[in-house]
Amino acid sequence: MKKLINGVETILDESLDGFAAAHADIVTLGEGRRFVRRRTLSPGKVALISGGGSGHEPLHVGFVGRGMLDAACPGQVFTSPTPDQMVEAIAAVDTGAGCLLIVKNYEGDVMNFEMAGEMVREAGGRQVATVLTDDDVAVPTSTWSAGRRGVAGTLVVEKIVGAAAEQSLGLAELAALGRQVNARTRSMGVALTSCTVPAAGKPTFELGADEMELGVGIHGEPGRKRAKLATADAIAEALLGAIIADLAPITGTECLLLVNGFSGTPLMELYLMVNAARRILIGRGLRVTRYLTGSYVTSLDMAGCSLTVSLLDERTQALWDAPVTTAALCW
Amino acid sequence: MKKLINGVETILDESLDGFAAAHADIVTLGEGRRFVRRRTLSPGKVALISGGGSGHEPLHVGFVGRGMLDAACPGQVFTSPTPDQMVEAIAAVDTGAGCLLIVKNYEGDVMNFEMAGEMVREAGGRQVATVLTDDDVAVPTSTWSAGRRGVAGTLVVEKIVGAAAEQSLGLAELAALGRQVNARTRSMGVALTSCTVPAAGKPTFELGADEMELGVGIHGEPGRKRAKLATADAIAEALLGAIIADLAPITGTECLLLVNGFSGTPLMELYLMVNAARRILIGRGLRVTRYLTGSYVTSLDMAGCSLTVSLLDERTQALWDAPVTTAALCW
Repeated sequence: MKKLINGVETILDESLDGFAAAHADIVTLGEGRRFVRRRTLSPGKVALISGGGSGHEPLHVGFVGRGMLDAACPGQVFTSPTPDQMVEAIAAVDTGAGCLLIVKNYEGDVMNFEMAGEMVREAGGRQVATVLTDDDVAVPTSTWSAGRRGVAGTLVVEKIVGAAAEQSLGLAELAALGRQVNARTRSMGVALTSCTVPAAGKPTFELGADEMELGVGIHGEPGRKRAKLATADAIAEALLGAIIADLAPITGTECLLLVNGFSGTPLMELYLMVNAARRILIGRGLRVTRYLTGSYVTSLDMAGCSLTVSLLDERTQALWDAPVTTAALCW
Repeated sequence: MKKLINGVETILDESLDGFAAAHADIVTLGEGRRFVRRRTLSPGKVALISGGGSGHEPLHVGFVGRGMLDAACPGQVFTSPTPDQMVEAIAAVDTGAGCLLIVKNYEGDVMNFEMAGEMVREAGGRQVATVLTDDDVAVPTSTWSAGRRGVAGTLVVEKIVGAAAEQSLGLAELAALGRQVNARTRSMGVALTSCTVPAAGKPTFELGADEMELGVGIHGEPGRKRAKLATADAIAEALLGAIIADLAPITGTECLLLVNGFSGTPLMELYLMVNAARRILIGRGLRVTRYLTGSYVTSLDMAGCSLTVSLLDERTQALWDAPVTTAALCW
């Protein structure tokens, strides 16, 4: 295993310390590194909180800041954060307008965020709602989740709902918007290599020199099928075929195309995938009006990428375009 | 070789098409894809132009936009662009105030940019000046360069000079500023794996499972030494030891720390390196007041990173902070 680390036990702590130092203008680190929060809160705004296992950076800590999340709870690598972390984060950023929890659909995350929500409600005085993301069309259920997995589309939900929260929408409206965006967003990925979990010290799965895993999960979970490595065009066709079949968009609909690297794949290849994917989407009658390209929802050192298509209307497009100031997204 | 491509011959063209489509609000692609230029020029402003072999994305095309470059010429993978490309880019973006060419110190790039400058001067009517970057302290000269190599520090020069150009500084002043920033900027990198050039189809160099290449170049050129893989702290110490010995900064000087991924190394590890590097710099009496972390000057799929330290004064710090709107850098 070749990683830039000092030891397996301290990776998350050291990485969070570096992150907090580098982005001290935007975030502060909670006590005991249990959460990352915005440096400056907006009283009266609904607080948006997410979190999950680490190893997917910049998700979620890189999306904390104006126009997106108020706090994020990082778990150990591929491990859910604890309910205690979430309760502390909620207490730190809820200014009285309530909290919206944005949770990727994995059993550990769902259970712990539910427990945190109950603890907060029982303590009284706070409103909490939850949006689950489950944008991955690859498999109907998986080793890590009951139902579809939440993957790169989660950042689209966080961005659009984050922008709406800045406009002083209420908790129920934001939750409804989040569910609507999730329902209009679909993703599927492909792995060219496995990731290596630091504590395991070896690749999560074996992949032949000429093989790829179509529909891989962001923890290296199995996808739809193992296949011979294909061209970028054929891969884009396979991923978008599954996405479009599921989304069944009306011809002429505007959409966002997110080409997301799993972190081991260079930007040059991701932009090549943008080119392949946009031609296919245009051929299917969609209007690709927004793009995001880069390694945003990663899987440690895995090579490969996912494609996400999110259908936009006038309102969600304007919310996507609204200003955002985070470590990972800024415009 | 596992890459998201359709064929070795068309990688650059397809990637540029995807890039231009994704960032059509910021850039346009020149005829025959010979350069990438800003969509909107500022008449009367000195034009900043850079370029070099591709495979280092987002450098340089990702740095075209307001506050940074006016145009960038992409060569094939690890191959200099041609003088013709540069001449066309100059003609496309020079609005009469002259052109500053920012060139990484590699023999092919230096020769071709020199030739382009001569062609433009001979044609008459345009002023052209050049800034060479040579921030890599690893080796005094290399297989690809006479003298030190220009690496990640190049983006610091492009950002600071780019901001100054927006303030209507003249060509000579901008060239002097670029040379000053380059002289105060030093870098050194480490590879944990080789990169694989698409046309070669196999790794550029062999590295044992427990080895690293200290001082590697951004094309996989040899560095200072092959060594056993060490901890992040020890690697940071080795890289910064060489950088600080060369920079010989005065105690209390403010600096920018750039932790640059070569593209195969996840952000989680890069932030861990930020943490390691900042402690060392503070221990050496420097004040780390600015940070940039990410894969900005890459080497295809190579795992590893480089550290760059750039000494700042009040003026250069303000220029670093000035607004920038490019595909890869935005604040």
